[in-house]
Amino acid sequence: MTTAAKMPQTGAELRRLVREGKFRQPTSGVAPDHVQANVAILPKEVAFDFLLFCQRNPKPCPVIEVIEPGQVEAQISSPGSDIRTDVPLYRVYKDGALVDEPPNLNEWWRDDLVTFLLGCSFSFEHALIRNGIELPYFGTERNVPMFKTTVPTVPAGPFSGPLVVSQRWIPQDKVVRAVQATSRFPAVHGAPIHIGDGAAIGIKDQFKPDYGDAWIPEDDSFVPVYWACGVTPQAVAMASKSELMITHSPGHMFVTDMKDEDLAVF
Amino acid sequence: MTTAAKMPQTGAELRRLVREGKFRQPTSGVAPDHVQANVAILPKEVAFDFLLFCQRNPKPCPVIEVIEPGQVEAQISSPGSDIRTDVPLYRVYKDGALVDEPPNLNEWWRDDLVTFLLGCSFSFEHALIRNGIELPYFGTERNVPMFKTTVPTVPAGPFSGPLVVSQRWIPQDKVVRAVQATSRFPAVHGAPIHIGDGAAIGIKDQFKPDYGDAWIPEDDSFVPVYWACGVTPQAVAMASKSELMITHSPGHMFVTDMKDEDLAVF
Repeated sequence: MTTAAKMPQTGAELRRLVREGKFRQPTSGVAPDHVQANVAILPKEVAFDFLLFCQRNPKPCPVIEVIEPGQVEAQISSPGSDIRTDVPLYRVYKDGALVDEPPNLNEWWRDDLVTFLLGCSFSFEHALIRNGIELPYFGTERNVPMFKTTVPTVPAGPFSGPLVVSQRWIPQDKVVRAVQATSRFPAVHGAPIHIGDGAAIGIKDQFKPDYGDAWIPEDDSFVPVYWACGVTPQAVAMASKSELMITHSPGHMFVTDMKDEDLAVF
Repeated sequence: MTTAAKMPQTGAELRRLVREGKFRQPTSGVAPDHVQANVAILPKEVAFDFLLFCQRNPKPCPVIEVIEPGQVEAQISSPGSDIRTDVPLYRVYKDGALVDEPPNLNEWWRDDLVTFLLGCSFSFEHALIRNGIELPYFGTERNVPMFKTTVPTVPAGPFSGPLVVSQRWIPQDKVVRAVQATSRFPAVHGAPIHIGDGAAIGIKDQFKPDYGDAWIPEDDSFVPVYWACGVTPQAVAMASKSELMITHSPGHMFVTDMKDEDLAVF
């Protein structure tokens, strides 16, 4: 395994190491400032409905790139890549149930599969950090707290379900800055969907997340701020019980050649 | 025909008049501050590729809403609407050739048709005007000048072709403001794609547009600024020679219930 000192500095470098079997760990902190993507691979017959679901729910489901049926190279964001080999760890679901967690897709690839690369929160978290907002879980083994809400997504075909959000405690005097800094990145979840008491979006206990680790703020000068989360499309796709669905294993992202700033709208 | 004094003030009001056969004219200036949309209706078999084309080319092809196969109501942007009757004038193309210009789709509707509502420049033009930038063609019979460029779009399936841009001459001291004002609206073409001499994007004569009317600036304190144009997806879809394609007739848009500000990202 690579050490921090030898961490790959670009998406292409990371993908080569993964393909050669030399990198099999979470990608947080790898290839700084490069866009990392959530992966969802589905059969062609549900691809239109899933793309439409993403179009209707751009905050939780920001599309970085779609690889056409049977194609394996992310030509736009990552020339030379191969989606069958370049993700450090995959998960394979049949009819909504986890059946395999392979290091490549040699045994699972089919010519009718369509790959969706969806934006992840790493890009806007870098923007928060650059603006002096501390994220205590960043670069640790801990994960951001995530909650199921009572906010519905807009359905498309077989895809529907509640919005999942991530929670970050922001110093009162940095809340406006946090909104501004993340608004620049609509392609990676963008502006928050809620500021303040989570009860308004159906969160019963703001210290008991449904996924990830609880975050207890130091004192009451911190305000909880909620962003749409990339777990939403995975949960929705899984609930649709597609005959086959392949994703990255949590934390083991596909790293592109794009830079975070390429995704900023201004 | 309605007069300016009696112009419908909302999308719902306009659509009702159109449906009753009482409004059959261009929609410029109708329902102020409401989002107007370009219409492209295509068979289901090419719908995934066309949606993917839009995802890959969001500046010329900003998707406001997609109505699923056989459905006729734009439930998200315009509840109660009927796409078969609510556009003032349609155009019907078979294999890329214009065959009809009907006031409704009673004779052409099929259950496999998918409707794409794409953002149009009216929304960001209002933003320019609010920022003190004059558009001499606005509210007249003249049209904005539009040019084919040598900038390629990113292809998807059968859809490919050059980017078409609209041209606006902006006072030198307002160029930065024009970029800022339109950057707020990525869902309706967003920021310019080029500032200055059009030769850089393949425009040979900046006073001889391929569509619309020439715009000669008063003096050389004006700078030409180019935005991606909604003619692009229509030209691309037409060039694909889809067996059937239905659009709005130029200027006769579908008017939604959404407000321009609903599309602003910040």
